[in-house]
Amino acid sequence: MNQLGTLYGIGVGPGDPELLTLKAVRLIKAADIVAYLTNTRGQSLARTIAAPVLAEKVSGTELPIAVPMSTARDAANQAYDSAAQKIGEELAAGRQVAFLCEGDPFFYGSFAYLHERLQHDFPCQVVPGVSSLHAAAACAGLPLALQGEDLIVVSPRHSDAVLIDALQRHDNIVILKAGPHRARLLDLLKTAGRDSDAVYLEKITQPGEYLEAQLDRLPVTPGPYFSLFLISRRRNSR
Amino acid sequence: MNQLGTLYGIGVGPGDPELLTLKAVRLIKAADIVAYLTNTRGQSLARTIAAPVLAEKVSGTELPIAVPMSTARDAANQAYDSAAQKIGEELAAGRQVAFLCEGDPFFYGSFAYLHERLQHDFPCQVVPGVSSLHAAAACAGLPLALQGEDLIVVSPRHSDAVLIDALQRHDNIVILKAGPHRARLLDLLKTAGRDSDAVYLEKITQPGEYLEAQLDRLPVTPGPYFSLFLISRRRNSR
Repeated sequence: MNQLGTLYGIGVGPGDPELLTLKAVRLIKAADIVAYLTNTRGQSLARTIAAPVLAEKVSGTELPIAVPMSTARDAANQAYDSAAQKIGEELAAGRQVAFLCEGDPFFYGSFAYLHERLQHDFPCQVVPGVSSLHAAAACAGLPLALQGEDLIVVSPRHSDAVLIDALQRHDNIVILKAGPHRARLLDLLKTAGRDSDAVYLEKITQPGEYLEAQLDRLPVTPGPYFSLFLISRRRNSR
Repeated sequence: MNQLGTLYGIGVGPGDPELLTLKAVRLIKAADIVAYLTNTRGQSLARTIAAPVLAEKVSGTELPIAVPMSTARDAANQAYDSAAQKIGEELAAGRQVAFLCEGDPFFYGSFAYLHERLQHDFPCQVVPGVSSLHAAAACAGLPLALQGEDLIVVSPRHSDAVLIDALQRHDNIVILKAGPHRARLLDLLKTAGRDSDAVYLEKITQPGEYLEAQLDRLPVTPGPYFSLFLISRRRNSR
């Protein structure tokens, strides 16, 4: 019987290919299979970020797995079941699989759903990456948190009440995946009195990067998925 | 008059030198001055993490800056004033300064104190790094947060009431720099009913790395500074 392959969940960082770690580069280059999720048009941000490394790879196969974006729980579960099965077949055949994840694999990403399906049957290793959290702070020139402060990460999926409470209670707040909900979030920021503490960023370190430090200039139309508000106690103490 | 040098705040990751980014490596190698804070015995974790890159560096000077660990505000401010002055002299002379930061520069680190002192007079760039947050989740095999969940980062500097509230209110909690306060934090985890959701990690990806998933085995004596509790809703759903 073959020895099992290892599944490597590899964070490729927020967008700039230079923000891959040395470990990510080594493991992607060494992998038999480089797997990643794509949308139904075959696009994968993680694959795009890792493209320069893949261009230097001398052997191995790519395994793109289409997963329809769906909020329907059953459809999503089915898609992850099917993706896990495809990856599991490679691992069972003894092949090393590098699974590419934008940002960090365990920070609001899809890898967690594959990991929970595969971790009991196959050796798994997670290679942490630079997340949008840290890339946003660097890009904005605003510390995420200092000694004695707290930091909370929330998403527009939370209710208005939860978001306002978070904005009023905590020193530093990051609202992930904010673009599609800009108008609502701008209202909540004003209601909570934190609009002047906030900056908005999208496509951080990617082509088309956009930082808006004056929220009244921000279009209230929906923006892209990879976007966030960073709200910092120190925004106005500069 | 010379052109001003740029200050690069460079995240070198949690400990494993392979978790430096390609960008960090390039900028450290290119810098005229590699600066970092040390304790009074001359030790620097950031310098240790970057040692393999420094060993390959062909030119440039190191600038270690001793900063006494002090909770006294005045002493700390004085130390950062003096550190900023030393770095400022190099920048004013047109030299590029790479300042090494363990983890991510803007995540509870000292770099923020230098950045606020230097950012108005000199060009500054922050290079985000892999933080202990993401390294801990990878090491424990536990996602930090999934869609629809929140994540809060706190420290033992917060009061018992604040910590218990955070533990009871949020899906996922990270308590940073937990080692020196293990006994108190273990009590709070029990009080909040979250002890079975928690794992403890110290020196993540460093020599002496230690993960304890059974908290009743954890010594109640003080542990090291670089340590944390990771409390996850999914800890017991595995």
